[in-house]
Amino acid sequence: MSNTKIGIIVGTNRNDSQSEEVAKYYSKKITEAGFETTTISLRDLPHDFAFSALYSNAGKNSAFQNFQDKIDACQKLVFVIPEYNGSYPGVLKTFIDGLRHPDSLAHKKIALVGVSSGVLGNAVGLSHIDDVLSYLNANVMGLRIKLGNISQHFKDGDFSNPIYQNFIEKQIKIFLEF
Amino acid sequence: MSNTKIGIIVGTNRNDSQSEEVAKYYSKKITEAGFETTTISLRDLPHDFAFSALYSNAGKNSAFQNFQDKIDACQKLVFVIPEYNGSYPGVLKTFIDGLRHPDSLAHKKIALVGVSSGVLGNAVGLSHIDDVLSYLNANVMGLRIKLGNISQHFKDGDFSNPIYQNFIEKQIKIFLEF
Amino acid sequence: MSNTKIGIIVGTNRNDSQSEEVAKYYSKKITEAGFETTTISLRDLPHDFAFSALYSNAGKNSAFQNFQDKIDACQKLVFVIPEYNGSYPGVLKTFIDGLRHPDSLAHKKIALVGVSSGVLGNAVGLSHIDDVLSYLNANVMGLRIKLGNISQHFKDGDFSNPIYQNFIEKQIKIFLEF
Amino acid sequence: MSNTKIGIIVGTNRNDSQSEEVAKYYSKKITEAGFETTTISLRDLPHDFAFSALYSNAGKNSAFQNFQDKIDACQKLVFVIPEYNGSYPGVLKTFIDGLRHPDSLAHKKIALVGVSSGVLGNAVGLSHIDDVLSYLNANVMGLRIKLGNISQHFKDGDFSNPIYQNFIEKQIKIFLEF
Repeated sequence: MSNTKIGIIVGTNRNDSQSEEVAKYYSKKITEAGFETTTISLRDLPHDFAFSALYSNAGKNSAFQNFQDKIDACQKLVFVIPEYNGSYPGVLKTFIDGLRHPDSLAHKKIALVGVSSGVLGNAVGLSHIDDVLSYLNANVMGLRIKLGNISQHFKDGDFSNPIYQNFIEKQIKIFLEF
Repeated sequence: MSNTKIGIIVGTNRNDSQSEEVAKYYSKKITEAGFETTTISLRDLPHDFAFSALYSNAGKNSAFQNFQDKIDACQKLVFVIPEYNGSYPGVLKTFIDGLRHPDSLAHKKIALVGVSSGVLGNAVGLSHIDDVLSYLNANVMGLRIKLGNISQHFKDGDFSNPIYQNFIEKQIKIFLEF
Repeated sequence: MSNTKIGIIVGTNRNDSQSEEVAKYYSKKITEAGFETTTISLRDLPHDFAFSALYSNAGKNSAFQNFQDKIDACQKLVFVIPEYNGSYPGVLKTFIDGLRHPDSLAHKKIALVGVSSGVLGNAVGLSHIDDVLSYLNANVMGLRIKLGNISQHFKDGDFSNPIYQNFIEKQIKIFLEF
Repeated sequence: MSNTKIGIIVGTNRNDSQSEEVAKYYSKKITEAGFETTTISLRDLPHDFAFSALYSNAGKNSAFQNFQDKIDACQKLVFVIPEYNGSYPGVLKTFIDGLRHPDSLAHKKIALVGVSSGVLGNAVGLSHIDDVLSYLNANVMGLRIKLGNISQHFKDGDFSNPIYQNFIEKQIKIFLEF
């Protein structure tokens, strides 16, 4: 088993999201490839974290610090990110705004997965988050997966669309060697 | 006095932010030009709004609904937005994610003002938020003001840098006719 | 007939492009609505314009100046833009880089139409070009039309997909009042 | 000496550009670190390449093919990119549009350097080009260098500003290990 620990971030705090199911799929595939994974789901965040874990409260919210610790323990991260209002969820950026500055994501290797009910697969949102992660000196893998029309192609934890299956398999393979 | 009501949004929930002071400056200038303004500061949001006002809770948080009502009452909006981690604050997008979908910002006319301690004046963040606002069918004025090195140029509620003063004056003039 | 003249820009220099056909569709619809249109196709540019019309040669290439004159005569512009390598064609930006600086597009009202063989409809490219046009103080309408899978939905100069027809009709209606 | 060959791309076809001087600086520093470099300057492109090397002419322009060969020989690329109209030069995207599709840049490792006379250092343009390069499966290093106010800080082939010197030194060090 590899020493690299890989975090899978569910980029929303919505309950019962398809992004959470897609994250489980990635976790399963990456575990099968011999890597340790940990899932970081934003719906477990303290509900007032946008106030209680940022600015003068940075570092003081112990429930938020559990998330920080999980991030710190990972060398690589997969972000599974639904499309809200044409971009990534605000709660994901608020989470990043709450992390210890400026080194929390520096030099980590990151893969991006967009999820949407519409056709775009969060293409524009992945562009935006890439800018944020690059600003923080993370290295984002070029190959971004955009899973549009997710409800048609993903059911009961599996992809019915072989194009999506193949893309994800390719992305994971390259990411594990990245 | 014009019938157009203009909202000035302070795009962060940080206390004592320079964005709030810049918002006051815009409010003063726009009021002097004969328009009614209202300030919408994200630091007044209910602290758990990312959970209590989104998804299945949409429309159910009365404190959040006060913000919705203020937005609904305005035909034009000025967003004053600090740069956090190379883009706009997550809390601002979370706020937008909580607004009534999909018409809350449609056809509103919007001016963007970026604020940063560094040189960029949130140039990249204004690009990102423009995508979100455009997605929601708002019309964003092309002229975006980027107030970099804000601490050097803005003190006691006024701009010491005449370049910034002139840019803002020009932006407000065009915006009121937009 | 309105006094407003509307230019339709074909955002590629490729021969026989679908963007050119989509531009014809827009031209027809806008003419029918009572507005004068002119088509500006980048394939008519002098072949060496990237060298002969930029920098120290700015303003000296008379064939390029015909394009400048056409732009100058329009108050509104529709950009029909294919997706090349995940964004807008380089030749379109080179064309903009050759226009008289900095006022050629200032205060013009602009509608964006993305065209692609894939699903995205140039969503990311429209985000990029919006930044360029906004930088030049043009006012870009929020509603951007993304015509993905164009070959399936557009044949013999007409849209077979009623969703696309309705979106375009809506976009044109709003644009003419913008 | 390392087997890795590193191309330095001057992202404009303007004569006597500061980007070309900055590219020379990078070439010197990277050569001193024991790596072979090759400079690829867009001003050497055939003047009609936007027509003679794209679409049905792809692969047929032997002068353009020399550029393709140079790109193919490099495992890593540094893009030195001036800011034109708030983004990267159109001629750079046109160059990419002319490269063999779709593998010319895939899996190459890329560092971005923005250059501008204004304060932004092409921050927005680097965001745009990152999207294009990522779309083509290149891996862009997170740390992007933005050299604003270039004329104040760079003279006679050297940086007078120690902040810029240190940033570049750090970027090159990380890039050579990337």
